[in-house]
Amino acid sequence: MIGVAIVGFGYWGPNLARCFAETDGCQVAVIADSSADARARAAKRFPAARLVADWREAVASPGVDAVVIATPVRSHYDIAYAALRAGRHVLVEKPMTETADQAEMLIEEAAQRDRVLMVDHTFVYAPAVRAIQRLLDSGDLGDLWYYDSTRINLGLFQRDVNVIWDLAVHDLSILQLLLGRAPIGVSATGMSHVKGSPENMAQITLHFDQAVAHLNVNWLAPVKVRRVMIGGSRKMIVYDELEASEKVKVYDRGVLLGDQPQDVYQMLVGYRSGDMWAPHLSAAEPLLVEAAHFIDCIANGTAPITGGELGLGVVRTLEAATRSMRLRGHPVDLATMRLAS
Amino acid sequence: MIGVAIVGFGYWGPNLARCFAETDGCQVAVIADSSADARARAAKRFPAARLVADWREAVASPGVDAVVIATPVRSHYDIAYAALRAGRHVLVEKPMTETADQAEMLIEEAAQRDRVLMVDHTFVYAPAVRAIQRLLDSGDLGDLWYYDSTRINLGLFQRDVNVIWDLAVHDLSILQLLLGRAPIGVSATGMSHVKGSPENMAQITLHFDQAVAHLNVNWLAPVKVRRVMIGGSRKMIVYDELEASEKVKVYDRGVLLGDQPQDVYQMLVGYRSGDMWAPHLSAAEPLLVEAAHFIDCIANGTAPITGGELGLGVVRTLEAATRSMRLRGHPVDLATMRLAS
Amino acid sequence: MIGVAIVGFGYWGPNLARCFAETDGCQVAVIADSSADARARAAKRFPAARLVADWREAVASPGVDAVVIATPVRSHYDIAYAALRAGRHVLVEKPMTETADQAEMLIEEAAQRDRVLMVDHTFVYAPAVRAIQRLLDSGDLGDLWYYDSTRINLGLFQRDVNVIWDLAVHDLSILQLLLGRAPIGVSATGMSHVKGSPENMAQITLHFDQAVAHLNVNWLAPVKVRRVMIGGSRKMIVYDELEASEKVKVYDRGVLLGDQPQDVYQMLVGYRSGDMWAPHLSAAEPLLVEAAHFIDCIANGTAPITGGELGLGVVRTLEAATRSMRLRGHPVDLATMRLAS
Amino acid sequence: MIGVAIVGFGYWGPNLARCFAETDGCQVAVIADSSADARARAAKRFPAARLVADWREAVASPGVDAVVIATPVRSHYDIAYAALRAGRHVLVEKPMTETADQAEMLIEEAAQRDRVLMVDHTFVYAPAVRAIQRLLDSGDLGDLWYYDSTRINLGLFQRDVNVIWDLAVHDLSILQLLLGRAPIGVSATGMSHVKGSPENMAQITLHFDQAVAHLNVNWLAPVKVRRVMIGGSRKMIVYDELEASEKVKVYDRGVLLGDQPQDVYQMLVGYRSGDMWAPHLSAAEPLLVEAAHFIDCIANGTAPITGGELGLGVVRTLEAATRSMRLRGHPVDLATMRLAS
Repeated sequence: MIGVAIVGFGYWGPNLARCFAETDGCQVAVIADSSADARARAAKRFPAARLVADWREAVASPGVDAVVIATPVRSHYDIAYAALRAGRHVLVEKPMTETADQAEMLIEEAAQRDRVLMVDHTFVYAPAVRAIQRLLDSGDLGDLWYYDSTRINLGLFQRDVNVIWDLAVHDLSILQLLLGRAPIGVSATGMSHVKGSPENMAQITLHFDQAVAHLNVNWLAPVKVRRVMIGGSRKMIVYDELEASEKVKVYDRGVLLGDQPQDVYQMLVGYRSGDMWAPHLSAAEPLLVEAAHFIDCIANGTAPITGGELGLGVVRTLEAATRSMRLRGHPVDLATMRLAS
Repeated sequence: MIGVAIVGFGYWGPNLARCFAETDGCQVAVIADSSADARARAAKRFPAARLVADWREAVASPGVDAVVIATPVRSHYDIAYAALRAGRHVLVEKPMTETADQAEMLIEEAAQRDRVLMVDHTFVYAPAVRAIQRLLDSGDLGDLWYYDSTRINLGLFQRDVNVIWDLAVHDLSILQLLLGRAPIGVSATGMSHVKGSPENMAQITLHFDQAVAHLNVNWLAPVKVRRVMIGGSRKMIVYDELEASEKVKVYDRGVLLGDQPQDVYQMLVGYRSGDMWAPHLSAAEPLLVEAAHFIDCIANGTAPITGGELGLGVVRTLEAATRSMRLRGHPVDLATMRLAS
Repeated sequence: MIGVAIVGFGYWGPNLARCFAETDGCQVAVIADSSADARARAAKRFPAARLVADWREAVASPGVDAVVIATPVRSHYDIAYAALRAGRHVLVEKPMTETADQAEMLIEEAAQRDRVLMVDHTFVYAPAVRAIQRLLDSGDLGDLWYYDSTRINLGLFQRDVNVIWDLAVHDLSILQLLLGRAPIGVSATGMSHVKGSPENMAQITLHFDQAVAHLNVNWLAPVKVRRVMIGGSRKMIVYDELEASEKVKVYDRGVLLGDQPQDVYQMLVGYRSGDMWAPHLSAAEPLLVEAAHFIDCIANGTAPITGGELGLGVVRTLEAATRSMRLRGHPVDLATMRLAS
Repeated sequence: MIGVAIVGFGYWGPNLARCFAETDGCQVAVIADSSADARARAAKRFPAARLVADWREAVASPGVDAVVIATPVRSHYDIAYAALRAGRHVLVEKPMTETADQAEMLIEEAAQRDRVLMVDHTFVYAPAVRAIQRLLDSGDLGDLWYYDSTRINLGLFQRDVNVIWDLAVHDLSILQLLLGRAPIGVSATGMSHVKGSPENMAQITLHFDQAVAHLNVNWLAPVKVRRVMIGGSRKMIVYDELEASEKVKVYDRGVLLGDQPQDVYQMLVGYRSGDMWAPHLSAAEPLLVEAAHFIDCIANGTAPITGGELGLGVVRTLEAATRSMRLRGHPVDLATMRLAS
């Protein structure tokens, strides 16, 4: 039985605690939060867990094999580093760390001590994203030409990170999963409408070798949208997370290329318009799938899907996008982190 | 009775001809197209009009007071310039010209000869856009914080202009109408997926003094979307051109700012969520409204809403966006047309 | 070249005239309407047609082989009967006649004179309906269990027929096509909200041998809906006429029957929930397809899909539904037209 | 502190237990279920409650002031009657009882012993329904002309009641709330597609003095729909329970009546088409509102909104609708429960 400590019982911590409580092979042994209110709420819902105020006590607790970190980003590195040094496995909420340097040090520490280091990029475990991955890997989509995401709603403004770190982070992890690599360049723009607050809306373009990704994120939108369009050379996808039933729609649409000039207005581009198809998706809760995967990686010593390298790639991109945004879109080269000439 | 010559009877010309035929105070006197097929179609639908192959003949025709130009962009300048020199009033399809220099020369020529020079930015005459303008001018929206447009579909790939010149041009004209000025800077990215074809998808950020605009345009999307989100300091709007009835929805939503720190995660930002309201819109066809406005400007010597200056602002922005796009997002200063340092 | 006379140039006549003008193998020779305004409009759009005020003149005109009737229902019988007696082929707008007796007399007259008698049930020629028919005929749907239609909007109130004759008529023709027979019994309820006007909303249940159909029609609804749900034993369909692209959606959903009691609340009924699939549909205009079919039936002496018998079945059902509605739902047996005991 | 016993911990009981646990002024003292599994689940979630297998023990338990019944319909009467006789207040899940006679006996018993008797018609406590009630009571809607509900989905087939008792029951309670009375007549049709199972789809028409209601209910539909259209003489409403944000939309639409014949086709009916408006609704959970209302009625001796009389009216209508359905739509007079002549 793997003992789990949950560090942070604010917005997301209770969800992680619930999922690990429902997962076989582990138990929620300790819950840590500096707020007495949060500890009281935790005690009511998880009467068997030990409650502590200081995360250091949770990390050091006998019977704790794994530490699950759901605190603000600025504390991720310190807690994860201490947990790894104490020989604990670590699951850390996204984004992994505040800087790519910190992420690299965690990866190194986990490797030296042979511990599992996993990042809570929940969407990677969503049945819809898995279905898209299968469509891409099977060749049904053809080459991935573009990924265009709109992820907007009203709130919640955060004080320690801008909207890219909060919302675009989801798309960055999905893109790493689908493409197996980080982008080579980024251009981003953004704006803050609340004095003293980080940017609350942003637009990001990511350049990959063959593909391009557009991300539109916003905390100040009149309606909630979670929609991704994916263009492949053979098929196209609309993935709408808010649809009740058909979250993933696959369109047999595209262009047919010829080689003769047609008329003065248009290219000789034909259009293919065929059937639409929405695969049935499992109703599994992504966070439960993820919790079971983490426990499984610990038990069997396997590498997690959203391990430290994927988390590092995301943080690197977040840093580069924030830098480009402060320069009003100036392209940043991700390999060198230099401004593109 | 104002005599109108329609130059170009391809995709858009027939719509213009139909609207001027239905407008009081004018008649379609001449239709010009170099294609015999196009002239045959025109003859069938507009039996009273004189058909000519050469636009020069249309411009020179006695009885022609106004020339309406619906040809590819690269011929706009030559035809419009000749028409103005011949003393004709001119309505030219969007975008006005291939370069800002050409647009400036047309403006000067029209001013010297005291002729009406108008650009066919049809959306400016749409009831939905007019309703949004009234909401902004009345102060109901508050300050305009952002304008975020998605304008995507499958096709029609064009050979002489990229997707920005074809689709983003609509938003640029609406923005000029709403804000009364061109942007001060632009950052754009884009990509071509068809060899030898101009960019078929692009993402543009426009910086204004206080506001920001995001435009997402794509000829290679699985579904058609024409949706604009507008954020004001007091209200927010969703404008969906494809909605059958409620094209404009006004949301009484926004943020409430306080001055005390709240918790470690979130800013002290409150959220206001009130009623939604969809004003009834006139069913008037925008192109008919525009045709009547052009004839009215000629008859009464008044300045058109979409005159040469507005058209020039749009062309300048298109040039700057294309330049930034070729530089992978490098910001371009619109006042100087120089790269932002 | 088959000469066609269009009788009635009000709301629907111009559409019929346009479609026959675009159809090969025929020409619009005569247009009849008692209104001088209507004739003036017709003259402008169809300059080659002869214009007459009296339908008798149209029927008798030399060069007229077929008469297309787009007048109010109460005049259908007289005009169609006269046309058939004059040896003309007849296409009559839906519903075919005011009574089943009249429909039977037209069928007999057409048979004796060997003329084509066809009813303008346009939806039968819609690509979406054809796709549904193919799904049913191929066995993919399984047995047809139910057909549930909502056909509502604001207006147009008619003075000579109630809403069942105006809107439910579409579903009745589709059902005749799909099932190949008229229902055996009907129960209907309805209400008029405008003094002196026929019923403007109604609900109809049609009993077939194995299947049931529900029709909900309303001229006084806040929004326009044109949606049919079709339940088969193997698959289910949602057909939404107002959808821009995916009008027909096929769901691999249904029940799985077992034979053991499960718990005190629920039957042992399992649920199957699989993929959804939307077949690509032709963009052909149904009325054009129908016009070509009528001309083809004349030229080749073949029987039309929507011939007199189908039209008669629809009228019989309309009569029975109206009778049941006046009796607040009392079931009416269609075979005998008697109240069900 | 009012002691509450929850009888039945199957599908709905846990929700009731949760809501009473969160409500001030009461505590969940006892939970009864004959299934050991259900008791084990209850023990885990409500460790402070006493668990019993026999409802008689729950009713007789000292410290129990109120009994909340969430068992199959056929046991409602026995449990509620015993609870009232033991001096307990009663909240019984909808529908109140299997027969109107049983409902009347409960009402009488509750009156004699001065106990609160309330029926769990949850939708009556929904913010959307309350908003509609306010619009009707304020006169904004004008007269209620019709209520047209579609309440369909796939499953859950029940074994002891037909689909009318499961789904239409919601609309019947809302109608009683809005109109303050039961209907005067009903016509219903329905069908079973699963051998040995009660009817799984039905269509019901309810006649009121001035208004009519249409209810379309179905356990065998490809998609889930919860949509009500309400027609008033001044305004119209679309109420969609599945909409995330704008559940209630108010349309300023309707007919304008004149008194002159217009043309041969149409009545002189004008159409009014104005703004649409969606009032902001509270996010309160209806069942929590209802639980607090029940406790409040006990504490203050006030009459509940969904008391025995409302519950009785609903059961009477359910009985009449089922009778009409078995007679294929034959109208049933609700005042006399006789077939309408």
